[in-house]
Amino acid sequence: MDDPFIIAGQELGSRLILGTGGAPSPQVLDEAVVASGTAMCTVAMRRVDPGTSGSVLDVLVARGVRVLPNTAGCRTAREALLTARLGREALETPWVKLEVVADDETLLPDPVELLDATESLVGDGFTVLVYTNDDPILARRLQQAGCAAVMPLGAPIGSGLGILNPHNIELIVAEATVPVVLDAGIGTASDAALAMELGCDAVLLASAVTRAQEPALMAAAMADAVRAGRMAHRAGRIPRREHAKASSPTRGMAAL
Amino acid sequence: MDDPFIIAGQELGSRLILGTGGAPSPQVLDEAVVASGTAMCTVAMRRVDPGTSGSVLDVLVARGVRVLPNTAGCRTAREALLTARLGREALETPWVKLEVVADDETLLPDPVELLDATESLVGDGFTVLVYTNDDPILARRLQQAGCAAVMPLGAPIGSGLGILNPHNIELIVAEATVPVVLDAGIGTASDAALAMELGCDAVLLASAVTRAQEPALMAAAMADAVRAGRMAHRAGRIPRREHAKASSPTRGMAAL
Amino acid sequence: MDDPFIIAGQELGSRLILGTGGAPSPQVLDEAVVASGTAMCTVAMRRVDPGTSGSVLDVLVARGVRVLPNTAGCRTAREALLTARLGREALETPWVKLEVVADDETLLPDPVELLDATESLVGDGFTVLVYTNDDPILARRLQQAGCAAVMPLGAPIGSGLGILNPHNIELIVAEATVPVVLDAGIGTASDAALAMELGCDAVLLASAVTRAQEPALMAAAMADAVRAGRMAHRAGRIPRREHAKASSPTRGMAAL
Amino acid sequence: MDDPFIIAGQELGSRLILGTGGAPSPQVLDEAVVASGTAMCTVAMRRVDPGTSGSVLDVLVARGVRVLPNTAGCRTAREALLTARLGREALETPWVKLEVVADDETLLPDPVELLDATESLVGDGFTVLVYTNDDPILARRLQQAGCAAVMPLGAPIGSGLGILNPHNIELIVAEATVPVVLDAGIGTASDAALAMELGCDAVLLASAVTRAQEPALMAAAMADAVRAGRMAHRAGRIPRREHAKASSPTRGMAAL
Repeated sequence: MDDPFIIAGQELGSRLILGTGGAPSPQVLDEAVVASGTAMCTVAMRRVDPGTSGSVLDVLVARGVRVLPNTAGCRTAREALLTARLGREALETPWVKLEVVADDETLLPDPVELLDATESLVGDGFTVLVYTNDDPILARRLQQAGCAAVMPLGAPIGSGLGILNPHNIELIVAEATVPVVLDAGIGTASDAALAMELGCDAVLLASAVTRAQEPALMAAAMADAVRAGRMAHRAGRIPRREHAKASSPTRGMAAL
Repeated sequence: MDDPFIIAGQELGSRLILGTGGAPSPQVLDEAVVASGTAMCTVAMRRVDPGTSGSVLDVLVARGVRVLPNTAGCRTAREALLTARLGREALETPWVKLEVVADDETLLPDPVELLDATESLVGDGFTVLVYTNDDPILARRLQQAGCAAVMPLGAPIGSGLGILNPHNIELIVAEATVPVVLDAGIGTASDAALAMELGCDAVLLASAVTRAQEPALMAAAMADAVRAGRMAHRAGRIPRREHAKASSPTRGMAAL
Repeated sequence: MDDPFIIAGQELGSRLILGTGGAPSPQVLDEAVVASGTAMCTVAMRRVDPGTSGSVLDVLVARGVRVLPNTAGCRTAREALLTARLGREALETPWVKLEVVADDETLLPDPVELLDATESLVGDGFTVLVYTNDDPILARRLQQAGCAAVMPLGAPIGSGLGILNPHNIELIVAEATVPVVLDAGIGTASDAALAMELGCDAVLLASAVTRAQEPALMAAAMADAVRAGRMAHRAGRIPRREHAKASSPTRGMAAL
Repeated sequence: MDDPFIIAGQELGSRLILGTGGAPSPQVLDEAVVASGTAMCTVAMRRVDPGTSGSVLDVLVARGVRVLPNTAGCRTAREALLTARLGREALETPWVKLEVVADDETLLPDPVELLDATESLVGDGFTVLVYTNDDPILARRLQQAGCAAVMPLGAPIGSGLGILNPHNIELIVAEATVPVVLDAGIGTASDAALAMELGCDAVLLASAVTRAQEPALMAAAMADAVRAGRMAHRAGRIPRREHAKASSPTRGMAAL
């Protein structure tokens, strides 16, 4: 591939990462996974019992999709560390999507606990993909702490508000030393395309697909949108101009 | 196709219509046409002499793309009618993209001349796809006058400012009795996706591709973006919520 | 005054023009008029019978506020002309706020009837302040037809959506030869300030005040906002910068 | 006053706080201070030598304006603590505007050092008004640490970009237990009005006034804008509506 997407030295076959929360059934999830073309899905470790029920995991394994355990529901660095270890043992992977939220109302990351957790997890050998707010300075500190990818939100989880502060995302991208994955807030395809145009390396979304009226169709839309946004970013868009500019100059135009 | 795009009873194989103005060379245009997957391109009749030079037309004919003559450069209904007739004779098609602009600075449509021209062209047997501003009332009147597609601008031609007034586009779509094609203002892929999400049937763009740093790559981006936006529109996006909503509910979560 | 606001040679003491529709009672209207400091209010001629009820007019006359009859509710140039003449006779003023809307759903101006009506009214000796959409070309044509002020909407009447397309308002202002009054769409104070910052000469609003929870307080807010926006426009704002700039440079800073 | 603005038990006579950085001369600063009607100005402790030059302080003292020392230029909690103590001794006030920025490029607050500094300063008896990013969770933590006012940015210092993420400001306001002061990013009057409409208790700005083409006129604009936004917030704005609503209903309208 001429534009590979690599995290921690491993190439992923798609720039669209799917969350599995909110899917009305394993079958719908399966259809969405296929339609999305995703190569990696996140699974909440505190919700799944990999030994028994496991239908979400079954879907992902059957489709050959990489499983990324996440620490959804954790409020402290300590909880996140325990949950991450559970995921590592159960799923036999050192990769973890780190979430440490401050409360159940906003589901916004707690910057202090998040930074602590990142340091602990990195120290414990994890490959940490960290869900964060859109503060460029916190993103910088998380990278200094050794995370493998920084995942700023566009808007609160499940809000579908899109990217509320594109300027911050651009600042994060501009100085990033690891991949930037836009995570949370995406509502529809144009939001995902915009994320990529701002320079993000990938997009992670769940509700926008799993709670859409037609999840599989929306998953296909997101796949195309991420690809579109990435290509547009690479293609070098025209500048914004306050005034019009004829695409068809009228000099030398036929007289009437 | 389960989601056909039809204008005046004829199905077009793509919802992306390409303008040919601004292409640095016939070869670049050719690559962009191929990458875009477009089924119809517009050509300015007052610029092209179909009998001689014709390299733009050669490209389109060779690629089997439908040619839609346009009246770019016309300021009055009378000029537009003459130009449309030239196009009909030269290209042997009753279809015309009608442009009647007020001046060379803004390239904005003149509503009065535009409505006159539409009536004249429809009376003369043309199939009229009409480039207009984003005024829902003018769009309504153009449809009453018999146009086959109404093509509101997102922003001034060549500005790349995107869709400045999505509310007006939604109003136009809501009461349209013919296809709505977003025409002018598109700067990048997310703009095109948004146009489709607002309910437009297709997108027409030129500069965004022909003047991009890599036109063929941007053309491919636009193709994906239009497809993505259309699917997202049909898939039924999640509502925007002021507050967060967990994709992974924490009820019944594993205790730590 | 060092920054006078003049329409058709007459100076008005305030850049805030108030519509009277929607006021829950004459007393509330009275309080709002006083708090707004307005010098001119519009009254719908087809609603008011100046001979009998007249309480709205009583309020305005008692407060010494200029009354500007309007043609609200008119759908055609003919209706508007009749209504304007009623207003001229009843209120003994050649000034009229011209409204010609296309339907009761959108209340958007009909560009064709509006231009016809403007020409007729100007020919009949009226001083025409014309409510229009935000199309710069229609605004230009209305000025060519002799209107005394052009009054583009920010958003549909009563919507409170603010200024949906600031770019169009700037284009209208840039080439205006008569005063530009932002009319319709204002929801709150910052919208009114923005209108003035874009270069409008005045703001006309009704529902934003009359339907606010506390009309008099909102009227006072609007008065300050219009003044603020006007001063900010004249004061020359700082440019927008993508990057931060210290207000307190740290060169020569005390060492610690 | 029926709507007093109180920080740490002390009432301030204005909701507009002025920064003094960027003023081209003491005289211009003086005019701006007067025109703004401000009751409190911040002064960078690491720039000013209160014993000698002191012209900025002279202006403020002469005008009877409260002086709020700030820690601009500090990068660590330790530096901020030292600087705050300098200010306390020099200006004989326990109030301090706390700034701890991460670098000179973005001038964005460092969340970790900022929280440390807040805790230290509160422990040391300071009344801490803390400049922070727009993260609602960090704002919450700063309040838990005992700050007297939380001062989120609208956009980076000196950028004039306005309020990039109004949603975050609303979240901060919704749960604030101390006054919220919008600090940084304001470019023009409508930005200041918007801040107040979002529910902020006050606005702090410097460059928008001191670097405007006419600082005193812009200061007057800001004074009116802050007042306008505050009143509009209290007055209860009309809801945003997707569709138009006649301010002058046409029922019972005069027939023509």
